[in-house]
Amino acid sequence: MKNRVITISREFGSGGRTIGKTVASALGIPCYDNELLQEIAEKSGFSESYVQEAGEYAPGGFLSSAFSHRGALPNNADYLWEIQYKLIAEIAEKESCVIVGRCADYILRDKADCLRVFIHADLAFRAQRITTVYGEREESPEQRLREKDKRRAAYHRFYTDMKWGHAQNYDITLNSGTLGIERCVEIIKSLY
Amino acid sequence: MKNRVITISREFGSGGRTIGKTVASALGIPCYDNELLQEIAEKSGFSESYVQEAGEYAPGGFLSSAFSHRGALPNNADYLWEIQYKLIAEIAEKESCVIVGRCADYILRDKADCLRVFIHADLAFRAQRITTVYGEREESPEQRLREKDKRRAAYHRFYTDMKWGHAQNYDITLNSGTLGIERCVEIIKSLY
Repeated sequence: MKNRVITISREFGSGGRTIGKTVASALGIPCYDNELLQEIAEKSGFSESYVQEAGEYAPGGFLSSAFSHRGALPNNADYLWEIQYKLIAEIAEKESCVIVGRCADYILRDKADCLRVFIHADLAFRAQRITTVYGEREESPEQRLREKDKRRAAYHRFYTDMKWGHAQNYDITLNSGTLGIERCVEIIKSLY
Repeated sequence: MKNRVITISREFGSGGRTIGKTVASALGIPCYDNELLQEIAEKSGFSESYVQEAGEYAPGGFLSSAFSHRGALPNNADYLWEIQYKLIAEIAEKESCVIVGRCADYILRDKADCLRVFIHADLAFRAQRITTVYGEREESPEQRLREKDKRRAAYHRFYTDMKWGHAQNYDITLNSGTLGIERCVEIIKSLY
């Protein structure tokens, strides 16, 4: 039987990772999130924190992207992307699972039986969450969220040509702020 | 008790109207769709087909919009928008219901307890639906769908400044093509 994969893209602070882990645990399948970072770090020789940072930035400016996509030497971000691409394809080949972030929706678009989920919430809900749940102590959590959103969207667009957060790219998108995290978990479970 | 309203925005051919009617019927509340057209036609003195057409086009070009939004005489589209705006606000004030289309999500954003839904599906699913369910006999249903999508998005953007189909504008968005119409109905009912 073909493996079934739930991919969860999410806005920073929306609870997407918590939702992914809870769904996976309820369904008895693994959830890949930080595990992916570790494996990419191991295979690439870079540190985990470097891999995490690189996954939030679209590579360089005009020149960097022009060269790396025209046959010149690949830059680090492109090299990491290749490792990430192969790793996610291998995981989906191996087992049913939940994968959080890392453009898994795009990478698996023709390779696996996927339920493509996007989780979002308004700034106030997320700001409250990153300060109380993650314990972040930013003077302006809203500003930090806006920057994170921008970076994730740019990274996604650079490697996938898909618009991040555009409903048409997903099977379902859920507002965890208005629906609540538990309700999101219930709905995703019911669709598996 | 404050009324609860389900607003359904949808891509043409995605089954959004069918989903709205089925949900409303199951919940025992009215569904406003063509009923809105009839009332707007009655209040405005225009024909239903004119009102329908006007609801799919963003008003005129540069000059028309510049004048109508700067205190010059309103054009027909602006006049219809005003009637539509008041009517939808009145309905939400009066009773719990489902409202399909007509920017109700935007009109009620601060006025009612709303569940804001967006229904979409890929072109192939919708093309098949408009030829078999609606009985349309277009040589290229895909082309017609693309035009319809563009018009609805432009109309929505003109009057609301919201991006149509952008996940962040909704509580939930559903792909009726991959999830199936019945599953969409079940999920929306469960959220009411």
